[in-house]
Amino acid sequence: METMSWGAELWDQFDSLEKHTQWGIEFLERYTKFIKERCEIEVNYAKQIRNLSKKYQPKKSLREEEESKYTSGRAFLATLNELNDYAGQHEVIAENLTAQIVSELGRYIQDLKSERKSHFHDGRKAQQHMENSWKQLESTKRRFERDCREADRAQQHFEKMDADINVTKADVEKARLQAQMRSQIAEDSKSEYSSCLENFNQEQNQHYHTLLPHIFQRIQEMEEHRVEQVGACMRTFAEVERQVLPIVGKCLDGMGRAAESIQPKVDSQHVVECYKSGFEPPGDVEFEDYGLKRTASESNLSHTRSRSKSKLWPFIKRNRQREPLSHRLSELISSKPRMHCSSKPRMHCLRNLKRG
Amino acid sequence: METMSWGAELWDQFDSLEKHTQWGIEFLERYTKFIKERCEIEVNYAKQIRNLSKKYQPKKSLREEEESKYTSGRAFLATLNELNDYAGQHEVIAENLTAQIVSELGRYIQDLKSERKSHFHDGRKAQQHMENSWKQLESTKRRFERDCREADRAQQHFEKMDADINVTKADVEKARLQAQMRSQIAEDSKSEYSSCLENFNQEQNQHYHTLLPHIFQRIQEMEEHRVEQVGACMRTFAEVERQVLPIVGKCLDGMGRAAESIQPKVDSQHVVECYKSGFEPPGDVEFEDYGLKRTASESNLSHTRSRSKSKLWPFIKRNRQREPLSHRLSELISSKPRMHCSSKPRMHCLRNLKRG
Repeated sequence: METMSWGAELWDQFDSLEKHTQWGIEFLERYTKFIKERCEIEVNYAKQIRNLSKKYQPKKSLREEEESKYTSGRAFLATLNELNDYAGQHEVIAENLTAQIVSELGRYIQDLKSERKSHFHDGRKAQQHMENSWKQLESTKRRFERDCREADRAQQHFEKMDADINVTKADVEKARLQAQMRSQIAEDSKSEYSSCLENFNQEQNQHYHTLLPHIFQRIQEMEEHRVEQVGACMRTFAEVERQVLPIVGKCLDGMGRAAESIQPKVDSQHVVECYKSGFEPPGDVEFEDYGLKRTASESNLSHTRSRSKSKLWPFIKRNRQREPLSHRLSELISSKPRMHCSSKPRMHCLRNLKRG
Repeated sequence: METMSWGAELWDQFDSLEKHTQWGIEFLERYTKFIKERCEIEVNYAKQIRNLSKKYQPKKSLREEEESKYTSGRAFLATLNELNDYAGQHEVIAENLTAQIVSELGRYIQDLKSERKSHFHDGRKAQQHMENSWKQLESTKRRFERDCREADRAQQHFEKMDADINVTKADVEKARLQAQMRSQIAEDSKSEYSSCLENFNQEQNQHYHTLLPHIFQRIQEMEEHRVEQVGACMRTFAEVERQVLPIVGKCLDGMGRAAESIQPKVDSQHVVECYKSGFEPPGDVEFEDYGLKRTASESNLSHTRSRSKSKLWPFIKRNRQREPLSHRLSELISSKPRMHCSSKPRMHCLRNLKRG
């Protein structure tokens, strides 16, 4: 793997790496947005489940309070409560994804951006330095080139003067000195160019074989660390949900237990406790012998009474009509132990009786 | 439990049982509505998760296609696919709740309503029959009462005639016969009343001790079966979700594996394969001795060239500038085996090179 280091292999891909690491940051930002949106979905789901659970909780109404005295009503209530806990687990998913991924990645992206900026700043500075060295080399090379031309020209001029018989010796000497001086200047420029070239080659060598590889190596490490972070976040993504699974399982256990706690026989016994009046069914109607006692007026009175209570069920009505009130109350009180009622339903039965 | 049967204990609670069983049906309807709303929430949740998964799938863009060549990109894609399967499990919950609870309960509620209707119809018919018997008994009792009064009056009239010395024997005989007849009529009414009473008492006894208990017994069985159904539905409610838990677990395993498949070193090697140009870093710049060969025009030409390519990175530019095109191409071709590139990334590198 070391043989494939970015410093050695991608020495001329500075811009590509700048683009690639920018993509890396954008990938993290897109992934963070993805997690945030997942969290919103979880929070929204939990809210809907909570609302569902709340909506079906027994209301304050007498009837729904009544319902919770039956095993089936209690089981439904228990299911709703477990469902509420289940919703809570999806909130936990959202909370943990936010804390363990969104927040962590937010901080990490900031650090990564500034680290990346610093590496590419170093790279650009090194490039700039080589740029300047190159310009300096070009400049010394041009000066050397120009000085060579000047020296050539001076030499040609001297040679032309020297060959011309009409020229004075003084002028020849002047041209010779000029050519000599130009040649010296060209020699100086050559040695400056040569030393500049040596310096440039030394710097260029260091740039490509030490400085740039070192910066690229750090960019590679930064990028590999980023990919590691992506892996860690994706592991967390799965783990956060896996952590709630056993608790979700417990909610389902609770729902299962609630379902198992339903006892039809117990509920139908509770119906008896709730509605039983305690009265015996009416016995035989007795024979009224008008041949012996003639009480026509009394008989008329009872007919009137029966009509005034016409909203009652006829059989109860007739039964009550025939029994004196004192008898009914005493029967009600004496029948108490017979009914196997706890004190609470008992109270309720009395209330029912009052309404009936 | 048999001692607490509705037939024996709730004989006078016909209306209460009618109301109670109506509540039972309403409970089932409310529970069905609850399940339907839960299904809607699950379907909606699954839809949102599916949309999330779809939204973050790599687009057709070159860059996102590129992304999927990195282990981190592939891992993200795998996570999205697992998330899609996870959404599917919540659809399965909704489907199974609909099939196993909503549909089943819908059918059951219809059956229950018609069974309940039939039981209360039987009960009301039996009540009506007793009502009629009672009216008939009242009627025979009133006739007997009236006939007694008539017989009394005829007897008094006969006694008054018999004691009056101014009345003819014929009129006395007539009054005696009238009294005798009236007495006979009263006797007949008495026996009719008596037989009607006997019949009524027999029927009333059967009504309270056989007919009503039998109907109430069937209502109790119907109600206990309803409660059993509630229990079965609540068990199913928990089971339907429990069934998907192992598959949800597998989705999470898949996400975990995707996270583990991320290899930073492999990704950074892929970066090399993707961007590597294959060129060697520039070697030392050679000394150009203008003192020996004077090619000022050639030197000028190269300067012009370098300016026209000024958008390229200066170091690559200089490098290319100094090498003839034929040399660069031959290096590119000969360097192929050196690069450890598969054919596909190779193509891409060429493309990159073209754009660079």
